[in-house]
Amino acid sequence: MADPTDTLVPFAADRPKTRLSDVLSPAERRAFADAMLDDVLAALSAAGFRPRLLTTEPTDRDVPETVDERPLSDAVNAAVAAHDPSPAAPLAVVMADLALATPRALSRLRAPGDVVLAAGLGGGTNALLTRRPEFRVDYHGGSYLDHLRAARRVDASVREVDSRLLATDADERADLAEVLSHGDGAARDWLVDAGFELDTGDGRVSVVREG
Amino acid sequence: MADPTDTLVPFAADRPKTRLSDVLSPAERRAFADAMLDDVLAALSAAGFRPRLLTTEPTDRDVPETVDERPLSDAVNAAVAAHDPSPAAPLAVVMADLALATPRALSRLRAPGDVVLAAGLGGGTNALLTRRPEFRVDYHGGSYLDHLRAARRVDASVREVDSRLLATDADERADLAEVLSHGDGAARDWLVDAGFELDTGDGRVSVVREG
Repeated sequence: MADPTDTLVPFAADRPKTRLSDVLSPAERRAFADAMLDDVLAALSAAGFRPRLLTTEPTDRDVPETVDERPLSDAVNAAVAAHDPSPAAPLAVVMADLALATPRALSRLRAPGDVVLAAGLGGGTNALLTRRPEFRVDYHGGSYLDHLRAARRVDASVREVDSRLLATDADERADLAEVLSHGDGAARDWLVDAGFELDTGDGRVSVVREG
Repeated sequence: MADPTDTLVPFAADRPKTRLSDVLSPAERRAFADAMLDDVLAALSAAGFRPRLLTTEPTDRDVPETVDERPLSDAVNAAVAAHDPSPAAPLAVVMADLALATPRALSRLRAPGDVVLAAGLGGGTNALLTRRPEFRVDYHGGSYLDHLRAARRVDASVREVDSRLLATDADERADLAEVLSHGDGAARDWLVDAGFELDTGDGRVSVVREG
């Protein structure tokens, strides 16, 4: 088997999942974010990636971590520069809230290409892999189109990974329905334990919480 | 090249896209639905599928059509029974509002398996292919999990296609941002002509419409 692929997993330990504040308390958001991180780390390891947390404050997890308080893009770019990615030493960046990510879906990041991109819902970039040292990230706003442009700017070949499981990050209430419908890890268990259930009506499935 | 794969494309010609009524007039919803259908039919044909419209009322399109006024699941199941799917004569069912579906993504429906399923966002089933005559659909509510169960009930092997492009149906306002961000066909052009633009702020990209 090939060497594990070094992988950054950015984690906002100090203020996780603020857009879920209408359905979860701060302590719950932290617990749910931890459960998703458990799932992502387990799936990465099962797929032969070697994760390193890039966290805004120290965690007590049994996984290598770099603490960097700067904004996400600055912290990731510093780590990319330090890694100096190449075809022999690619670097992946995988978001910590991909509650549906499976080892099989993550493995698709190893597709050929200088830069491999997996879009998130809402214009973001949920996972990527770079084999080029000069590629830089910019997660602000609609980052996916920006990353396509950034790759073009450095003449990098791009592979787009078409994955629903990697596109689903759990940012907003509607995303919880995806985790309940399709998840099978710690994040789904946490939601079930917290009293969330699927609400199947007309249109899309949503969630309700037991009082 | 193999024979084209027969494919049903259900189309609610009489009441399209009702969940977009907060942003589009009835005439606009019909025009947008037509543009998405153009894109889906073109992508299917390019990928070697032979589409047949399953429509609630006659259209004047240059594509074979079956008119069936019954609810979606009844109409599809009647067509499935008439086709009598088998490994030599599979039948696909692809929704008409998959504005991001590419030939490559659609080709993944030909993966091995008695029943091949591609989930939609919100618990639905956006595309499927059956090689088994006794598999029946039920699109009500969270149909994806129901279809997994239905396949199990008839002892069919299931392949799940993990595709963001097939998962994205344009049902709600937030979906329009996906079409604007990632589309490149008639549906995207229609939105641009209608004055829609991406609104890139914090969080997910959304759409605004020029007054």
